[in-house]
Amino acid sequence: MTIEMFEKPLGMRDDFPAVAKKKAELKEKGISLMEQTGYELLQTPTLEYYETIGKISAIPDSALFKLLDSQGETLVLRPDMTSPIARVAASKLLKEKMPVRLGYYSNVFRAQKREGGRPAEFEQMGVELIGDDSLYADAEVILLASSILKKLGIESGRMVIGHARLLQLVLKDFGLDAHQIDKVRSELVSKNSVGFERLADTLPIKEADLDSFKALTTSTRLEDWQQWINPVNEEQKNLYNEMQQLEKIINRSGLGEAVIFDLSFSSHMTYYTGLVFEVYGSGSGFPLGNGGRYDGLMQQFGLQIGATGFGLRVDRLLEVMEKEQLQESHTLILFGKENEQQAYDKALELRSENERVTLQYAPAVHAIDEFCALFTTVIRMEGA
Amino acid sequence: MTIEMFEKPLGMRDDFPAVAKKKAELKEKGISLMEQTGYELLQTPTLEYYETIGKISAIPDSALFKLLDSQGETLVLRPDMTSPIARVAASKLLKEKMPVRLGYYSNVFRAQKREGGRPAEFEQMGVELIGDDSLYADAEVILLASSILKKLGIESGRMVIGHARLLQLVLKDFGLDAHQIDKVRSELVSKNSVGFERLADTLPIKEADLDSFKALTTSTRLEDWQQWINPVNEEQKNLYNEMQQLEKIINRSGLGEAVIFDLSFSSHMTYYTGLVFEVYGSGSGFPLGNGGRYDGLMQQFGLQIGATGFGLRVDRLLEVMEKEQLQESHTLILFGKENEQQAYDKALELRSENERVTLQYAPAVHAIDEFCALFTTVIRMEGA
Repeated sequence: MTIEMFEKPLGMRDDFPAVAKKKAELKEKGISLMEQTGYELLQTPTLEYYETIGKISAIPDSALFKLLDSQGETLVLRPDMTSPIARVAASKLLKEKMPVRLGYYSNVFRAQKREGGRPAEFEQMGVELIGDDSLYADAEVILLASSILKKLGIESGRMVIGHARLLQLVLKDFGLDAHQIDKVRSELVSKNSVGFERLADTLPIKEADLDSFKALTTSTRLEDWQQWINPVNEEQKNLYNEMQQLEKIINRSGLGEAVIFDLSFSSHMTYYTGLVFEVYGSGSGFPLGNGGRYDGLMQQFGLQIGATGFGLRVDRLLEVMEKEQLQESHTLILFGKENEQQAYDKALELRSENERVTLQYAPAVHAIDEFCALFTTVIRMEGA
Repeated sequence: MTIEMFEKPLGMRDDFPAVAKKKAELKEKGISLMEQTGYELLQTPTLEYYETIGKISAIPDSALFKLLDSQGETLVLRPDMTSPIARVAASKLLKEKMPVRLGYYSNVFRAQKREGGRPAEFEQMGVELIGDDSLYADAEVILLASSILKKLGIESGRMVIGHARLLQLVLKDFGLDAHQIDKVRSELVSKNSVGFERLADTLPIKEADLDSFKALTTSTRLEDWQQWINPVNEEQKNLYNEMQQLEKIINRSGLGEAVIFDLSFSSHMTYYTGLVFEVYGSGSGFPLGNGGRYDGLMQQFGLQIGATGFGLRVDRLLEVMEKEQLQESHTLILFGKENEQQAYDKALELRSENERVTLQYAPAVHAIDEFCALFTTVIRMEGA
């Protein structure tokens, strides 16, 4: 294969100015909202050890970009932000300040196998609330994700909420073992309802329970879940009660319409242990982001504490955001040798009035008409 | 070697919130100034082909992070931003809009061999003005670099200006061949004045010219350069005249005091072909950034056009910036089960007045006094 000078690696993109600017605006809005809600910005390095972050990241090994460092250790380009933030939060500096609220806007990497496929590098914006087991922490991140969508003008934002632990308990009550539960989860993650029904018929579920089992994929409201809750199982009852509390907060915040409670909802991220959710918006065929509780992950770093958070994909947020293209005012001042100083003074004056001003020596421009057409105002100094 | 869960690869750093926030502010200031001067933001991918960007980047091969993609091609983590921007500017979309002004704030990578050494990933902020051969383009980027320092409150900013082409012509006039010129440049790049003098004695320079040659490293004002300018060499005369123009613009802008004209100044970046400069500030032993004209680089992408620009290192800018630490107002509202709603309403109200408010369920906090101490105001709801 010969590589042309203009080529970029598989799945790599340039952000041209219009997109780069939109992303900068989106970032500014998202981060200011995170900060106002008490989150602090964190930036972790692009490269991490495979042994630490690579292995616990919940991203398949085949999607990791790996390289060797000068010591012969395997490094990875960070595949997500949750694991690096967990690493930082578990360090001495932060673990005495629990609960900690950390926010980020970072690029992450996923190796791609085919051209024209998904991006191999994309930005995520999100938060992690670490060291708080309560449902209020889950409510906080859900409301924050929703506020960010609103601030970005995404009116179509919807959310599907499930519960990894409650689903596991319910599946167990249907008489399934760990292996069978894994098979069910895998069909649910891929949202393959045909596969799910087919699988159901092969599982050792009592004849009388089969319809109820198959109905799992149909719940949309929290009260639908009640049919599967075992009233003598304390953990199930407590978790359901917490979800009712959460529903109350969600309804009170006016989000009720935008939220679906689907007990069968399962995330491809394997580290979630409690509430899980995914965010959608019309205009993108893919989720805008996802989140949930991942109490197990912090154990990898020696901490027995709860954590919850979410990440939104910037590329997909841009897809569903209003496309209005405001042409920003941008003045061009063309000058020649004789009036360079006047042009310079004029530019300073306009910039001090917050104008955006490009100052250009006219003889250096080859296609002057095309160049001038890029600006909203053109000032030609005499002779230029 | 056993890797602990908390470890990071050689030269990799976490930016804790205080630093991440400072960087975000610095970025905002720098970028707004670039935009106001007519530059547009660009973001290129982290990974590039070794064959394209890796080879032309002026960064030694041993400092490149390399990896193989799924096709077996060698990729590099971008070692600088100038070459990727040159690649983009030469693409069809932009090459019809010349001159183009592109700005960036990006992380770049340099593999390190030892622990405790320099960072292997750091951020650069800079601009490239591509497609303008005139000295006004050089003046523009110098003034912009200087305005950014000022906007960041760096009063100590100083600049050393040299000229790669003029130096080459002068060295040639001393009777040196290309190989000898390379040896001289190498001593000048490392600012090794002892090595330079020693080398001078071994070069085939006329006895009568030796003092003048050795004096090369002593120039501080542009008029000092005149002693080496050959009055019958048109190119030298023209370049010197351009530098006089530039000096006039620099003095007019009130930068005269902060600028040293040193004809012997040479950059480690080998692609500079004209004016070169380096930026310093008290508080950092290393240059804050550097820049210059690199007309040759665009040829690699098939364009016979001039280009000039600069890059500033964010880590070093932070070192020399005022260290004042304003404690930002940040309110904590602690609540219990009974008053969650009132707490939530109170937080919304304060946030709408632009207060930064963390809302926390009190029973989830283990060390409540230490936690409260992190905030400027604490509101405890009754019973919390």
